[in-house]
Order: sequence, then C-alpha cells, then structure tokens
Amino acid sequence: MATAVAGPEIERLIQLLSRLPGLGPRSARRAALHLIKKREALMAPLASALQVAIERIQVCKTCGNIDTQNPCTVCTDPRRDPAIIVVVADVADLWALERAHASNGRYHVLGATLSPLDGVGPQDLTIDALVARAHDPQVSEIVLALNATVDGQTTAHYITDLLMEANVKVTRLAHGVPVGGELDYLDEGTLSAAMRQRTLF
Amino acid sequence: MATAVAGPEIERLIQLLSRLPGLGPRSARRAALHLIKKREALMAPLASALQVAIERIQVCKTCGNIDTQNPCTVCTDPRRDPAIIVVVADVADLWALERAHASNGRYHVLGATLSPLDGVGPQDLTIDALVARAHDPQVSEIVLALNATVDGQTTAHYITDLLMEANVKVTRLAHGVPVGGELDYLDEGTLSAAMRQRTLF
Ligand SMILES: [Zn+2]
Ligand SMILES: [Zn+2]
Repeated sequence: MATAVAGPEIERLIQLLSRLPGLGPRSARRAALHLIKKREALMAPLASALQVAIERIQVCKTCGNIDTQNPCTVCTDPRRDPAIIVVVADVADLWALERAHASNGRYHVLGATLSPLDGVGPQDLTIDALVARAHDPQVSEIVLALNATVDGQTTAHYITDLLMEANVKVTRLAHGVPVGGELDYLDEGTLSAAMRQRTLF
Repeated sequence: MATAVAGPEIERLIQLLSRLPGLGPRSARRAALHLIKKREALMAPLASALQVAIERIQVCKTCGNIDTQNPCTVCTDPRRDPAIIVVVADVADLWALERAHASNGRYHVLGATLSPLDGVGPQDLTIDALVARAHDPQVSEIVLALNATVDGQTTAHYITDLLMEANVKVTRLAHGVPVGGELDYLDEGTLSAAMRQRTLF
C-alpha cells in the first residue's frame, strides 16, 4: 500500500496476508480487519494453529506428503495397498484424490511437473525416489495422476520411459466428461477421448 | 471437510483460514499448503504478526478506529482538523478514505449501519458517542461518509435528525460518476445525481 493508514503492525499483517494465494491487497485488508474484530474467536486460534503447524508439520520422507508424523499417515496405514503408487505433482492433488476416496494405494509427490519453459527439470522433481520405489517388488502399479496439461503429460511420458525397466504397470487417469459436466461446454479433445473410452451402461 | 486427509492440526489450520472473508474451503486448503511450504518465509512471520496484533491492537476510545495506540494516530495527530468529523460505518471505510487522502478531519466509526431487517438498531451503533462529540464547540461539520445503500441512507437520515440540536453542519459525500467510470454502465440514479450536481469545468 502506498500509505500506512493503520500503523506498522497492522500493515505488516495485511502485507503477509496478501501473500496468501487467493487474497489480493483488498481482501487481505478485509481479512485483517475481520481477524482484529474476532480476536478471541479467530485471530488467537489461528495464531496458535500456525504455531502448531510450524512446530509439528513435516514432509514424509517416503512419499512427500505433509503430515505431523513421518512417515505419513497414508504411508503407515496397513489398510493401504502397497502394490499401488499414485503419482501426483503436488500435495494439493493428493488431498483432492483422498477427499474423493479415489484410491486405496499410496502416493508419491513429485513436487511439480516438468516445465522446460519455467526451468523446471527432472532434477527438481522427486523422480529418482519414485524410480527407486517402483523397483520395490511389492509395487506392481504406478498410477500417473497428473494434470491433463502439456506439462503434466510431458512429465507422464518422461516418467513412463524411466519406468520401462521396472516391473510395474504404468497407468494414468481416464479422460472423460466431468460428473455433472455439460457436453456443450467441453472441448473437443475431452469429448473424443470420452467417446473412445466409453463404457457399458 | 467431510474427511480429514491431512491430520487434525492441518485440518484445524484449513478450517480457521476458511473463516477469513475471501477464502472458501478450496482456497483455504491452497493457502494452508502455501503456508506450510513457506514455513520460514511466510508461516512463521504471519504467526508472529498475529501474535503482535493480538497483544497490541486496540479500539480507539474516541473514534472507534483500530490502532496500537489509544487514542489512535488520527485522533492524536495535531495536523488533523478538529472541526471536521467524518462518520463511517466501518474501519474498512476509514482506511479507504485515508488511502484516498480524502479528508483532513477526524473520524467516527459507527460499527455498522442501521438495518431493521437484520435487527441492527441505533443501540448497536456508536451514535450516542457521535452526538456527544458533535456538541464539542470545536466541531463544526459532520460528514456522513456512508454507503449509498438503503441502510446507509437510513442511517444518514437518522443521524441527521439527532444532530438538529447540535451546532454543526451535516454534509454527505457527493453522488456522481466514478473516476474512470463509463456512463453507459451507470444506473439512472447516479447519472441524474451527477447531472444535478454538475460542476464548472
Ligand atoms: Zn508418506
Ligand atoms: Zn481515534
């Protein structure tokens, strides 16, 4: 902000909040005011939740998930199928699949997708660790749950090539019509993929 | 969220973040992940900025502004004109006027606007304190800087009636074409007000 209208402490809070994805300068100001008005009900609990997170959250050394235990809850859950590893770009994708109860396997978080234009190469991703896990005789399937974007598919091809020598089946998510989606609004690539991969009713 | 995919500490952080205006459940998850990834650069500074705010921010006992000093910076600034009190519904409006350098006066934060439908009556606003301030012989003008909504204008009329006996001029913000606004997109009420209140070029 050009002018500090609210004292340096509040300006600092607004400035930090504005760095959260989804909050611009205007909504950061609104969020700061809301926090200040809800000091006991929201600001204090948020401050302590952040402090707990700072102290306790770790990156799982096996899969790259984040959790307060290491290895993470998913990696140590005996009900999870150790034969399947679902490869995701980001922890947000892991969370999305977990919310959908989409898989009973374990995960591998790459940390990003390959993006030559942005200077993201294989060494920036946890690909070596994935290849090592794929050679575990327990593992029989690697599901590439990557975005259906150019970078996602480039990454999928790159990993598929590296896994040629591992004794695993490499699969990917189906393309198709989103649940609730209207055909009218879908692009042609999705529609033709959905037609090719049509299933029995 | 239906399922806790990330441990109770992270779920708690997401749940608190989702209560900020502007962040829904999805963006709260994204914000939580962003914080966790930027533990040193963002999460720790935010936790401490919140702690500082919790400990130091107060409501100005004179005007209702929030600040780390009481009376606030505006109320104690000798360069401010003590003859003018700008009445706003909310601290957010005060901040907006300050960013615009719109006034050299002081402020009075009502806390809300009258809203019979929502059960907000005069006793919920700091109207008594405003009337008392208006009777200060130093004060000669009360500027009603309230939203141009039904509730805002109801509040303006209510306050104007109460101030009849005080020796002050009661003014309100002009209606007109927003700077950069296109006539084509403006409602008829704004356009006719802008025409009535036209000024010399
Ligand atoms: Zn794990
Ligand atoms: Zn004040």
